[in-house]
Amino acid sequence: MLEILEQVRSGALSPGAAARTLSDLPYSEIAHAVGSTMIDHHRELRTGVPEIVFGAGKTAEQIAAALRELARRSGGAIATRIDAAKAEALRAVLPEVAIHDLARIAVLGAPGPRPPAAEIAVVCAGTSDLPVAEEAALVAEFLGAPVVRIHDVGVAGVHRLLARLDAIRRAAIVIAVAGMEAALPSVLAGLVDRPLVAVPTSVGYGVSLDGLVALGAMLASCAPGITAVNIDNGVGAAVAAVRIARQVAAR
Amino acid sequence: MLEILEQVRSGALSPGAAARTLSDLPYSEIAHAVGSTMIDHHRELRTGVPEIVFGAGKTAEQIAAALRELARRSGGAIATRIDAAKAEALRAVLPEVAIHDLARIAVLGAPGPRPPAAEIAVVCAGTSDLPVAEEAALVAEFLGAPVVRIHDVGVAGVHRLLARLDAIRRAAIVIAVAGMEAALPSVLAGLVDRPLVAVPTSVGYGVSLDGLVALGAMLASCAPGITAVNIDNGVGAAVAAVRIARQVAAR
Amino acid sequence: MLEILEQVRSGALSPGAAARTLSDLPYSEIAHAVGSTMIDHHRELRTGVPEIVFGAGKTAEQIAAALRELARRSGGAIATRIDAAKAEALRAVLPEVAIHDLARIAVLGAPGPRPPAAEIAVVCAGTSDLPVAEEAALVAEFLGAPVVRIHDVGVAGVHRLLARLDAIRRAAIVIAVAGMEAALPSVLAGLVDRPLVAVPTSVGYGVSLDGLVALGAMLASCAPGITAVNIDNGVGAAVAAVRIARQVAAR
Amino acid sequence: MLEILEQVRSGALSPGAAARTLSDLPYSEIAHAVGSTMIDHHRELRTGVPEIVFGAGKTAEQIAAALRELARRSGGAIATRIDAAKAEALRAVLPEVAIHDLARIAVLGAPGPRPPAAEIAVVCAGTSDLPVAEEAALVAEFLGAPVVRIHDVGVAGVHRLLARLDAIRRAAIVIAVAGMEAALPSVLAGLVDRPLVAVPTSVGYGVSLDGLVALGAMLASCAPGITAVNIDNGVGAAVAAVRIARQVAAR
Amino acid sequence: MLEILEQVRSGALSPGAAARTLSDLPYSEIAHAVGSTMIDHHRELRTGVPEIVFGAGKTAEQIAAALRELARRSGGAIATRIDAAKAEALRAVLPEVAIHDLARIAVLGAPGPRPPAAEIAVVCAGTSDLPVAEEAALVAEFLGAPVVRIHDVGVAGVHRLLARLDAIRRAAIVIAVAGMEAALPSVLAGLVDRPLVAVPTSVGYGVSLDGLVALGAMLASCAPGITAVNIDNGVGAAVAAVRIARQVAAR
Amino acid sequence: MLEILEQVRSGALSPGAAARTLSDLPYSEIAHAVGSTMIDHHRELRTGVPEIVFGAGKTAEQIAAALRELARRSGGAIATRIDAAKAEALRAVLPEVAIHDLARIAVLGAPGPRPPAAEIAVVCAGTSDLPVAEEAALVAEFLGAPVVRIHDVGVAGVHRLLARLDAIRRAAIVIAVAGMEAALPSVLAGLVDRPLVAVPTSVGYGVSLDGLVALGAMLASCAPGITAVNIDNGVGAAVAAVRIARQVAAR
Amino acid sequence: MLEILEQVRSGALSPGAAARTLSDLPYSEIAHAVGSTMIDHHRELRTGVPEIVFGAGKTAEQIAAALRELARRSGGAIATRIDAAKAEALRAVLPEVAIHDLARIAVLGAPGPRPPAAEIAVVCAGTSDLPVAEEAALVAEFLGAPVVRIHDVGVAGVHRLLARLDAIRRAAIVIAVAGMEAALPSVLAGLVDRPLVAVPTSVGYGVSLDGLVALGAMLASCAPGITAVNIDNGVGAAVAAVRIARQVAAR
Amino acid sequence: MLEILEQVRSGALSPGAAARTLSDLPYSEIAHAVGSTMIDHHRELRTGVPEIVFGAGKTAEQIAAALRELARRSGGAIATRIDAAKAEALRAVLPEVAIHDLARIAVLGAPGPRPPAAEIAVVCAGTSDLPVAEEAALVAEFLGAPVVRIHDVGVAGVHRLLARLDAIRRAAIVIAVAGMEAALPSVLAGLVDRPLVAVPTSVGYGVSLDGLVALGAMLASCAPGITAVNIDNGVGAAVAAVRIARQVAAR
Repeated sequence: MLEILEQVRSGALSPGAAARTLSDLPYSEIAHAVGSTMIDHHRELRTGVPEIVFGAGKTAEQIAAALRELARRSGGAIATRIDAAKAEALRAVLPEVAIHDLARIAVLGAPGPRPPAAEIAVVCAGTSDLPVAEEAALVAEFLGAPVVRIHDVGVAGVHRLLARLDAIRRAAIVIAVAGMEAALPSVLAGLVDRPLVAVPTSVGYGVSLDGLVALGAMLASCAPGITAVNIDNGVGAAVAAVRIARQVAAR
Repeated sequence: MLEILEQVRSGALSPGAAARTLSDLPYSEIAHAVGSTMIDHHRELRTGVPEIVFGAGKTAEQIAAALRELARRSGGAIATRIDAAKAEALRAVLPEVAIHDLARIAVLGAPGPRPPAAEIAVVCAGTSDLPVAEEAALVAEFLGAPVVRIHDVGVAGVHRLLARLDAIRRAAIVIAVAGMEAALPSVLAGLVDRPLVAVPTSVGYGVSLDGLVALGAMLASCAPGITAVNIDNGVGAAVAAVRIARQVAAR
Repeated sequence: MLEILEQVRSGALSPGAAARTLSDLPYSEIAHAVGSTMIDHHRELRTGVPEIVFGAGKTAEQIAAALRELARRSGGAIATRIDAAKAEALRAVLPEVAIHDLARIAVLGAPGPRPPAAEIAVVCAGTSDLPVAEEAALVAEFLGAPVVRIHDVGVAGVHRLLARLDAIRRAAIVIAVAGMEAALPSVLAGLVDRPLVAVPTSVGYGVSLDGLVALGAMLASCAPGITAVNIDNGVGAAVAAVRIARQVAAR
Repeated sequence: MLEILEQVRSGALSPGAAARTLSDLPYSEIAHAVGSTMIDHHRELRTGVPEIVFGAGKTAEQIAAALRELARRSGGAIATRIDAAKAEALRAVLPEVAIHDLARIAVLGAPGPRPPAAEIAVVCAGTSDLPVAEEAALVAEFLGAPVVRIHDVGVAGVHRLLARLDAIRRAAIVIAVAGMEAALPSVLAGLVDRPLVAVPTSVGYGVSLDGLVALGAMLASCAPGITAVNIDNGVGAAVAAVRIARQVAAR
Repeated sequence: MLEILEQVRSGALSPGAAARTLSDLPYSEIAHAVGSTMIDHHRELRTGVPEIVFGAGKTAEQIAAALRELARRSGGAIATRIDAAKAEALRAVLPEVAIHDLARIAVLGAPGPRPPAAEIAVVCAGTSDLPVAEEAALVAEFLGAPVVRIHDVGVAGVHRLLARLDAIRRAAIVIAVAGMEAALPSVLAGLVDRPLVAVPTSVGYGVSLDGLVALGAMLASCAPGITAVNIDNGVGAAVAAVRIARQVAAR
Repeated sequence: MLEILEQVRSGALSPGAAARTLSDLPYSEIAHAVGSTMIDHHRELRTGVPEIVFGAGKTAEQIAAALRELARRSGGAIATRIDAAKAEALRAVLPEVAIHDLARIAVLGAPGPRPPAAEIAVVCAGTSDLPVAEEAALVAEFLGAPVVRIHDVGVAGVHRLLARLDAIRRAAIVIAVAGMEAALPSVLAGLVDRPLVAVPTSVGYGVSLDGLVALGAMLASCAPGITAVNIDNGVGAAVAAVRIARQVAAR
Repeated sequence: MLEILEQVRSGALSPGAAARTLSDLPYSEIAHAVGSTMIDHHRELRTGVPEIVFGAGKTAEQIAAALRELARRSGGAIATRIDAAKAEALRAVLPEVAIHDLARIAVLGAPGPRPPAAEIAVVCAGTSDLPVAEEAALVAEFLGAPVVRIHDVGVAGVHRLLARLDAIRRAAIVIAVAGMEAALPSVLAGLVDRPLVAVPTSVGYGVSLDGLVALGAMLASCAPGITAVNIDNGVGAAVAAVRIARQVAAR
Repeated sequence: MLEILEQVRSGALSPGAAARTLSDLPYSEIAHAVGSTMIDHHRELRTGVPEIVFGAGKTAEQIAAALRELARRSGGAIATRIDAAKAEALRAVLPEVAIHDLARIAVLGAPGPRPPAAEIAVVCAGTSDLPVAEEAALVAEFLGAPVVRIHDVGVAGVHRLLARLDAIRRAAIVIAVAGMEAALPSVLAGLVDRPLVAVPTSVGYGVSLDGLVALGAMLASCAPGITAVNIDNGVGAAVAAVRIARQVAAR
């Protein structure tokens, strides 16, 4: 802004033109219309995290176009919620894409260098929670954070969790993924002193209410210090954990 | 019924009178109007458990009358949900009553001999859950079952629970009382092989929804074999556990 | 543990090795990666009940692998929620499997001897509740408990229930399965003195809310002593009833 | 309308005046501002039922004024939801009022002759449901219908209900009042062929959700032909039953 | 019962045999196993209404078997919730069945003479509510009640309703079918003095919550005397209305 | 902004100072700490409507301070949700305040001239809805819009509404206030072509769910063009209507 | 009406015939049965807006017939919720129809001249909200209002919104379309003084509850003056905005 | 553990005593019965955060005893949810306590040195959210983290937030407190790259549902990376933020 004002003083810019520029500059948004999707290339500047393509409700063509446009700028791009049918269609239109079946994630290219980040442990209660856990792990890795995966430590066999505590404590941040009664984060929060991001999953039936009870149990926990994201929101947990991991690594 | 039919054959009873008696007998209800409360003296015959006076929404006079009528028949009677104000009023009209403040329970007299019953462990997650746990324990004892109390073993410090497992395993049935995220029964069900009756409590705030999340977490548990009763329903858990405890002791 | 410590004293085991063993032993989990499923062979030791494969959300291949691994160890294995399409696929990859169509259950082999268990009555309100009732019955039988089935005794024709009371009373434990208004357990609890595990079903429409009203009615019952499991959770009811049945038979 | 048109033809009324009258006549509303309450004296003409003063949220003065205005026109008037405090205040400003404490109803004067109506049975599950049942009974009687009261026939002791079936069947219409799991109407609907109006009550706690589960159970019933009114709505049930009772008696 | 007791006195029946008969008689249920469906032939004796086959969740074969068994006894039988696919399958296995497409109803044969019944008006708010309205109308006619249909009188054009009031008032009972905001019964209840059975439909989206708001609006109505059935429950409304219509016609 | 840039060109302002000013100016907020309340004096500039003090949860002292500060600037100020107790306390500390009891509104002083606004009709279903209706009317008048009040035109007597249509149609905007089943806006929207802002009230009980059903009915209405505000939100309806009324009058 | 009464005075019309005509006239509804759909040609007279065909749940044939009947009268007709499959079927039976794929709208012909209307800004938070936004825009244009579209101004990049404020302020009315947390209307309402109609969309998952949270956030906004319509209800927002736009243009 | 095993080898400890010690050591819990409250002195060792006394539902005596016991060990102790009445009572029994009225917090003594922690910004949307924000700030400071407070930056005047961005960005972690539509965290997450813990408050009425909509809006946000805690849970947000702040400062 100072630069522009200097140009006004020097007469290189008229006050009217400067007013227009000043109105625009911090808000300008270079819109690349990719099909009907707008790509927000400024987001990474403001928040440290580029746009992550949410694949649900988009066609393979829309996803491919968005991945290409994002990768063209920054080297790599990532899309989530790519189910089996969409993965097949996506491979057809974008052969160079890499698909992670379990996590339902597509990656195009490889991103440039990221800011340093501390290690994140992705801890998962049961086998059915794995797709969400792996979505979190892959997104965190895409954003440049090292990840350790710790699976099948649900509280129905609490000794399994106790046996893995050392590995968990070696990480700087913990993402805990659980469905059904979602007791895992409550038990964990009483055992470790790390930041703890809980991800409820929609695993369960009947009173599980598609994950609402799991979410409620995480937020109502008797152990203080747990924070939660939306149901099945592996991406959100990864972004939250990476925001922490970068702060930790930055100091 | 055979006895009545023999009387018909012998002419001691007319068919018409027998018809009335047969209609009445299994259904007859000796109604003692105690204020506006009807006492079901037959309930214990059918279900093994006498009427337990639910004190909420009743005046001290109504509670006193019901306790007296029930105790007159069977030696002892019990009422629940007797808060501090009602306890004071009840003592004024029924000086011989014994009040358990924490459990909000009033007992009049002592019941006669009960059927034998196996031991019940009442396990409680936190201090705030104690009133419900103690309601369960006192009702179970009133119904003749031995009770062991194990408190403050919530999952935020899971080692506390592990340290008490032997005591819990010595009982034949476990009542687990927990509010908030209510993870205790899930952890317990993975550690012991005993029948497990879970009691959600309304302890908590916000997303706890007055105990609905605790109930949901218990029913959605990843550990099979947990059964639950209504929120804060210590009485129901005690009756359910005593039904089991008598079956166990009867064989 | 004493055994290990004696080995330390005798020098047969070094303190370091003993420390590792002590950390591992009670928590050790022999993980057989069957596809992406972890099999918890220790669960039966701790809780008396082996892992029961939950078929919903698993492929036929995953189910087959889990059944084979479990049966290899203990002689028999069981999977639930095997709908018609999955049953066909499962038969293709695991020809020796036995499928119970109504109960949507698959059994492989036959389990070894089980602990003795008292008789369980599975009582069912309506025809539409039969799949859940039969799931409960077959799982209980798989776990070694004798089962008597009593069907179509919904309260819309309460005399049908009254006519079957003697059969119900001969069992030591009652599982009551009902959807819609789910009044059956309330009526039963006033007529018998047996432990009563209620299973709400998702049968119904509109205000039934997929079984939530049935569950609510069971838990809000005016008859004390009813306990409930999750909606359509025949497995959970069976495990809960078998826990009781073994306690009864063990004394 | 014909009368007015004849006056137009005869010249006794100008077309303009007739237009105004025709616009007004069927809609005219003689508004007696009683405090801030408008009295709809036409309602009884249209619907057969006069305005019944809903006492909740009104002051004793407003209730007294409304009762006086209604009674001035038709001989008698009735108000509901008059709790103990309001009853005392109402007696102070309207000494001639008659208060029914249990039903929380106030009656002023006596209504004129009513249309004939068939008998209504008010059947009540438990003692706590009595205020709502009695509200229904008194309003039905105020509207001119004979009422038989049958109390304490909840399904936890179903023989009590069976013993009273003859009395219930003698009535032409049945109002069934129940809280908690509200199984009474379902059992009744399978035993009698009468029109059945079910009233859920807010009796219960926890999962009862202030009567929502009772309402849900009534509407989700497996027994067809049950209709329901709002929770605790004794007045609504009475008006519905009287509408039926008058149709029955009118033929 | 008197007859049996006379036989005991005369020695024609032993007391033991009589005891068995007395236990059985009022409860006996002639069970015709039709596939896995039990047919309750006694229901019509007790409640005046035969079993109506609920087609949802049943196969065409099960529906056909149930219809045949019911029609064999009473001349005619009726099934509901027969969607287009099921109708085609049903016609294949039961060619003599008559299908009403809009109402999704199947009728086999014609029932014998029914008790007399007063006229029922089925009033419907919008075109989308017609399937439920026609289900109610056809079931009422099957049960022997004359029906008048009044369609498309939703409150968004209230003059349409006013224009049809005379026709509505000629009936003895009104069934009002409405979805979305379901204001029709409230307006009607202020205009007519007839018994009014309201049927909420699942027509609508978003906040309609599949008919829950329509049901709530009917039960919360400012106009007293409305009763409601479950969402989309045309059958229940018909049975309720026929119970009334027969009482009206019986006097 | 141009003015500041001219000062930069003329040297009257350094680029650095200008940068600070430009950052601040459009965002500057003159914060008058009134107790713990911040007054947003800029809001009226941006949105045309000054801050309206929400009295719930504030002490009489806080309300008085906020009213004084707002009135000092603009001549008049208004506060809502002033119940009887708070009104008394407010009069004690701010004797010159004017209280409208029914609407629970307090006004201090008189605002300066307002922009012109078209007439708003506030239409109210029942007596119990009057406080919310009057809150809307008084706030609209405070904001400078002429208001016509039309009360007691609920749909239980729809002719009352029809008789007042001409008056309603004379206004440019309609605010419709209704609780319980809230059918009034649906009927109105089919009869008039005016913008229609619906206000659900919490009047009702049981299934009314404190106004949620009324809100749902308004939003699910079969009549297009209704918009709604939060439950009991008379203020919000007034502000929305005044925004419209000023646009109408401005052209 | 005066005309008819003059005819009565002149004898040209008998009182009886006049009575019939007067009953009919204001209510008469020329019903053109188009398949099973009734077309309300009077709606536009009363409310200014013709019937808009709601395509969900209608066959292509029913939609075509309704469009033809409406267009025959007024030149043009419009239908909504025409998904891809239905669009194809509709084109087959009505080749002259114009389909807007994104908005899922079908238009037949062109409507005659409309009343003048002020400009409406349709502001949209994200790409996924576009179908609803475009439905609103096209319906508003069909009703004769000029529309400006402003897309992709969600609050996750609030500068995008600030950059478009001038364009938004040039319109007389704003429709704001947003899903997920739906913060856009709250931010907008603090920045502009225009009437603001908010449309929540079902975009989102998990706690979004199909748009209920977005709706709740709009109604609970801290910024007064927002009104809302049902979830995904672009049509309703357009009709509401056009009602305003015509009032603005009419003065 | 090695130390104990060495003692076994050296004979200093018998195997039996070692077994008891090994069972106890990691689980031992020094229980100081303070009234009926158990103090978990080990919690700080495991999780870095000492027990924080939750004052709701405890008497002043219980709170005082817990504070004294905790402060005796670690120098200082803190209790939350101390409303005005409880504060007065607490001061009476514990005169040396310091009460923060707005935050409803009581502090006894001063804690010893804490681990270093990075700065936390507590950002608050409105005046009514201040008690929760201040609870978070004071707890964070008690745990040793520096806190900057930024108030009254709700989105209804988004420029207020933009003006404070620099101050927010200077902190390492952001706690965002908001009620009603809770849009603040969504806007913030698009503007800063810091870890963001969102606290919904119960501020609002009607559809706010006591904070459930605010919570839902935070979790459903279009801006990834927001995590949330329970409604009004300032303590939980503080503990979560301090866990992060210590990780940041530790590296």
